[in-house]
Amino acid sequence: MRIAIAGAGAMGGRFGYMLQNSGQEVFYIDSWQENIDKMKTDGLTIDDNGQERKIPVKAYHAKQIGEEKADLIILFVKSMQLPEMLRDLKPIITKETKVICLLNGLGHVKTIEQYIPRPNIYVGVTLWTARMLGPAHVHLSGDGNIELQNIDPEMEEEAKKIADIFNAAGLKAKYSQNVLYSIWKKACINGAMNATCAILDCNLAQFNQIPHADIYIRNLLNEFVWAAKTEDQVELDAEEVFTVLKQTFDPSRQGLHYPSMHQDLVQNHRLTEVDYLNGYVWKLGREKGVSTPYCEMITILTHGKETILGIS
Amino acid sequence: MRIAIAGAGAMGGRFGYMLQNSGQEVFYIDSWQENIDKMKTDGLTIDDNGQERKIPVKAYHAKQIGEEKADLIILFVKSMQLPEMLRDLKPIITKETKVICLLNGLGHVKTIEQYIPRPNIYVGVTLWTARMLGPAHVHLSGDGNIELQNIDPEMEEEAKKIADIFNAAGLKAKYSQNVLYSIWKKACINGAMNATCAILDCNLAQFNQIPHADIYIRNLLNEFVWAAKTEDQVELDAEEVFTVLKQTFDPSRQGLHYPSMHQDLVQNHRLTEVDYLNGYVWKLGREKGVSTPYCEMITILTHGKETILGIS
Repeated sequence: MRIAIAGAGAMGGRFGYMLQNSGQEVFYIDSWQENIDKMKTDGLTIDDNGQERKIPVKAYHAKQIGEEKADLIILFVKSMQLPEMLRDLKPIITKETKVICLLNGLGHVKTIEQYIPRPNIYVGVTLWTARMLGPAHVHLSGDGNIELQNIDPEMEEEAKKIADIFNAAGLKAKYSQNVLYSIWKKACINGAMNATCAILDCNLAQFNQIPHADIYIRNLLNEFVWAAKTEDQVELDAEEVFTVLKQTFDPSRQGLHYPSMHQDLVQNHRLTEVDYLNGYVWKLGREKGVSTPYCEMITILTHGKETILGIS
Repeated sequence: MRIAIAGAGAMGGRFGYMLQNSGQEVFYIDSWQENIDKMKTDGLTIDDNGQERKIPVKAYHAKQIGEEKADLIILFVKSMQLPEMLRDLKPIITKETKVICLLNGLGHVKTIEQYIPRPNIYVGVTLWTARMLGPAHVHLSGDGNIELQNIDPEMEEEAKKIADIFNAAGLKAKYSQNVLYSIWKKACINGAMNATCAILDCNLAQFNQIPHADIYIRNLLNEFVWAAKTEDQVELDAEEVFTVLKQTFDPSRQGLHYPSMHQDLVQNHRLTEVDYLNGYVWKLGREKGVSTPYCEMITILTHGKETILGIS
């Protein structure tokens, strides 16, 4: 199967590497010139639990993508780059090309639908992680899994075939009857802490120790619970999510971790993905005439900090 | 008249200096040992619009205050130091000692009432400013004024006498029929931007340029308008306050200024006074069963940042 990895960052590198190892024909598409150049000349360097491997790969800049058609495209771009990437991917998409989106955050299906027919769209969540050490250099550690599902109810069998491909590569995929639940749950967990750790410049354990952290977290969780129900009839249990979240704050678990928006805003002075988490809930609130003050405020503060840091 | 300046910081230094110049008998009380030591040995150094003057002064540490009774005490401590200072002041207070509070923020009268009979309490707002350059060293610039009023309706004449004393010292005091209005208005202006500039590490002009700044400001203003009406039957005009606030953001006015909580939190790693602004409105909301999410959130974030910075 010809699999295109659209977005050759840390996660794209992990998935591409594991799929290529399992015998799939993989090629990478990315907009970062230095990354693509290095992949072409030196291949992809993978630190796989202590062992360094150099893998020859096929890589294309998104603006010079050629005509090689893909059977499956795995989307691993930043949320805000999704529309442009989908436009760039046009030359490699056929009527049969399946697209699977494993991005964090909300609202991606609405974007993808504008470019891809619904029967070819699949979504999922993954707990795999990876870290970019530099252009064409990815560090892998830890374990993970994938839940995925078709968007079109008719396409369940096709979704299971995609899961099989992932499983053959060791990516531990499971067909889900209700992946929207998992997507909302993950968004909810992220929405309750990610942007705030960026604004306060702290890790999860530090965030957990600020006075009134629990009130603060519950305020945000409740707005996500409302949004999940309103947009997708997904019934999240706020207390269950709260319990999961509080466990991750333990320093012996993910407590010492700085979440993605901290990495973006504080560490790398890049735009955050807040519009696909708290900003998405705020937008839904405005559409429905419902006040979502906590998501609104953290979204404004996060974009405010981007503006003050001169990030655009 | 024997006037005690309780809190010999920048504003205390300005008021003490101007009152002493006008012939009043002034003494200073402060908890900062180095400040008091320097005042005792070298006097108070005042940079008055370019001219440096050294003034011999009487100064006491708040814990070694002696027994010299005061006719008038002017409170210029940080809000959170107010209860302790009032306890420390006990030895110099008689049944006739008047106390005037010119602090920013809300809720001070409730604190003062616990130590001073209501007929002796006066409150006000002032637009005078000053800057501390070091222990016993105060920089004065610009112009200002004072509005003040009695708390007990019977004491109007006494309030006017205090205004006369300030006026004789060039402090431009005016008796106000409704000083609560001015206190709430000032708190409202502060509450809409002060803590946020601390959290975002920006000045007023930068804050004004973040996306959705106007929505953000109006959300906070509306909660203060509710609080003013609920607590003191003060009718603030949110649009009027909004207009005043937007004018101050102009870089040719106060736009390049970093407000007090920025100075505290970011510049000096000191506790902020957020509990006497947004935190006060949030507390009132809880008492009345009314949601004040914007004040709640900025209060939690501000205390959160204090905690993360290890300030206590």
